Amino acid sequence: MTPNRNQMVTLARRPQGKPQREDFLLVEAVIPKPADGEMLIQTLYLSVDPGMRGMMEEPKSYSAGFKVGQPLTGRSVGRVVVSHHADFAAGDFVYERLPWQLYSVSDGRKAKRVDPNVAPLSTYLGVVGVPGFCAYFGLKEIGKPRAGETVVVSGASGAVGMTAVQLAKLESCRVVGIAGGAEKVAYLRDELGLDAVVNYHATDDLRTALDQACPDGIDVYFDNVGGDITQAALSLINHHARIVICGQTSQYNHPSESGKFAPERLIQKSALMQGFVVYDYEDRNDEAVARLGQLIRDGRLQHRENIIEGLENAPQAFIDLFEGKGFGKQLVRLAHITE
Amino acid sequence: MTPNRNQMVTLARRPQGKPQREDFLLVEAVIPKPADGEMLIQTLYLSVDPGMRGMMEEPKSYSAGFKVGQPLTGRSVGRVVVSHHADFAAGDFVYERLPWQLYSVSDGRKAKRVDPNVAPLSTYLGVVGVPGFCAYFGLKEIGKPRAGETVVVSGASGAVGMTAVQLAKLESCRVVGIAGGAEKVAYLRDELGLDAVVNYHATDDLRTALDQACPDGIDVYFDNVGGDITQAALSLINHHARIVICGQTSQYNHPSESGKFAPERLIQKSALMQGFVVYDYEDRNDEAVARLGQLIRDGRLQHRENIIEGLENAPQAFIDLFEGKGFGKQLVRLAHITE
Repeated sequence: MTPNRNQMVTLARRPQGKPQREDFLLVEAVIPKPADGEMLIQTLYLSVDPGMRGMMEEPKSYSAGFKVGQPLTGRSVGRVVVSHHADFAAGDFVYERLPWQLYSVSDGRKAKRVDPNVAPLSTYLGVVGVPGFCAYFGLKEIGKPRAGETVVVSGASGAVGMTAVQLAKLESCRVVGIAGGAEKVAYLRDELGLDAVVNYHATDDLRTALDQACPDGIDVYFDNVGGDITQAALSLINHHARIVICGQTSQYNHPSESGKFAPERLIQKSALMQGFVVYDYEDRNDEAVARLGQLIRDGRLQHRENIIEGLENAPQAFIDLFEGKGFGKQLVRLAHITE
Repeated sequence: MTPNRNQMVTLARRPQGKPQREDFLLVEAVIPKPADGEMLIQTLYLSVDPGMRGMMEEPKSYSAGFKVGQPLTGRSVGRVVVSHHADFAAGDFVYERLPWQLYSVSDGRKAKRVDPNVAPLSTYLGVVGVPGFCAYFGLKEIGKPRAGETVVVSGASGAVGMTAVQLAKLESCRVVGIAGGAEKVAYLRDELGLDAVVNYHATDDLRTALDQACPDGIDVYFDNVGGDITQAALSLINHHARIVICGQTSQYNHPSESGKFAPERLIQKSALMQGFVVYDYEDRNDEAVARLGQLIRDGRLQHRENIIEGLENAPQAFIDLFEGKGFGKQLVRLAHITE
């Protein structure tokens, strides 16, 4: 197959607060030619992540942030179309952080081969990828839920949250999800079997709603969102609670508003709050893949994807992340293939 | 000895913001008579603690807070003057939480005998008491400093801070203290041998001053104060930093202003922040006494006390805690004795 057309999404300007459509530009691009030791990859799926928002800020002294006029980059799954690389062949499927672009050249150093027979290609960006790893390690290494404890997960209908609630259920915990909207609530309660779900769209007193959903307080709070939801949860933690700081989606658009958390709370409850990035556990990815893969094959771990078609719609998919529209892993499909 | 006069300090009204002299009242009191199984204790030393501020707030649903019109209570060392208790004899020295009062009755259940031959009586409220335990367990169980790491301690001239910096030095860390005023800075640098001391009175750019004092960033931040000083420290933490939340003195007078901490920082640095109270380690007090006592006897751990004379001056001693006047352990001596 010889590609004859390339496109990419660039950062047109740095967003102020919530990202806007005009912050991004879809432009035509040349199809790069792989040199010796390189390969040409056709991107099949883009992962759309709230964490990309931080990389759109004006860079500080050193930073891996995005440059204005340059393509965004993100975690992607693609197919090798031309290879001059010894370790990869045309037809291979790979995972890599790539430009938001139909075709990209890679030197293969950070590419990992993925197998559609082990798990569907798209799930390497979701439940058996970074979001799944976040849920797995955050819960296992920081939250450490014990049977009978109450685990509350914010952003429960997102890719990380959805995996976290199910893993907590498997530990025989009382699991309470926080999500926005009746459809998500019904899914979490009826499909994933949560003990209670708080719909933050349907209450103007989140703290009371959460209090009622957690009659024994909160032992583990797995935080994906920050802000007011987290304030409500922190007001209900038990002694020796563990707070997993995985994401702070509600804060990414307003980096100067630094939340309202009072560390005093941690003293009152002898509580632990720990942040992490999944790369901390990079050498244990195989462990996570094995466990999550097994759970999926056993039918004990569900996942949900929201797949948008076409690179031109990727910016809107990113913008929607901050509108509380996320429901499962947000992906963009750039090309249809038969796996 | 038969006491013929008693006095106590009561809470006259709940403080608004910073405590004022008028929030407290010195009143005459009857000398209580110990019943069978009780004893009469003459208080010798009162501990003046910033943590008492929280107990002056309007109580929530359940609370061990102070009542208006009733005496304050605090950690105290006293001498048994009359005993109808099987386990204590007149002349024994005891540690207990007692009313701010010259003479009090105790049923002995929470009294602990202390020995002036092991350590001076006053130090059971300081370096071999709760402040010392806070430094010891906070550093050992949460901060976990390793040789060569940079440890920053806020409130470094206070009873907890002063012990923490010395324990960190003993672990061969680069130790940086934060304190207010030239006298404290000189003491910390010259007497305790800190690698650097930041005088927050002498700079209007604390972050830069701290940055210069910590060329390799901050690995352990032992926090006694919260607020702006903590914001500056958190902006300089290294990957896998440990933040020990021991006290938040700067916040106690303004419980509605909830600081400015953004948990996002913990993600960026995979950092751990943990609160604790010393009672979490109650069953290990002997370990702390043994270690701290040994260090004192070896001349490797210094302590400093600021002793005010007379119950009538106890309220002012408490008020001064929030004026940054604290330098070592703040105590009030109610009676002179020969130990």
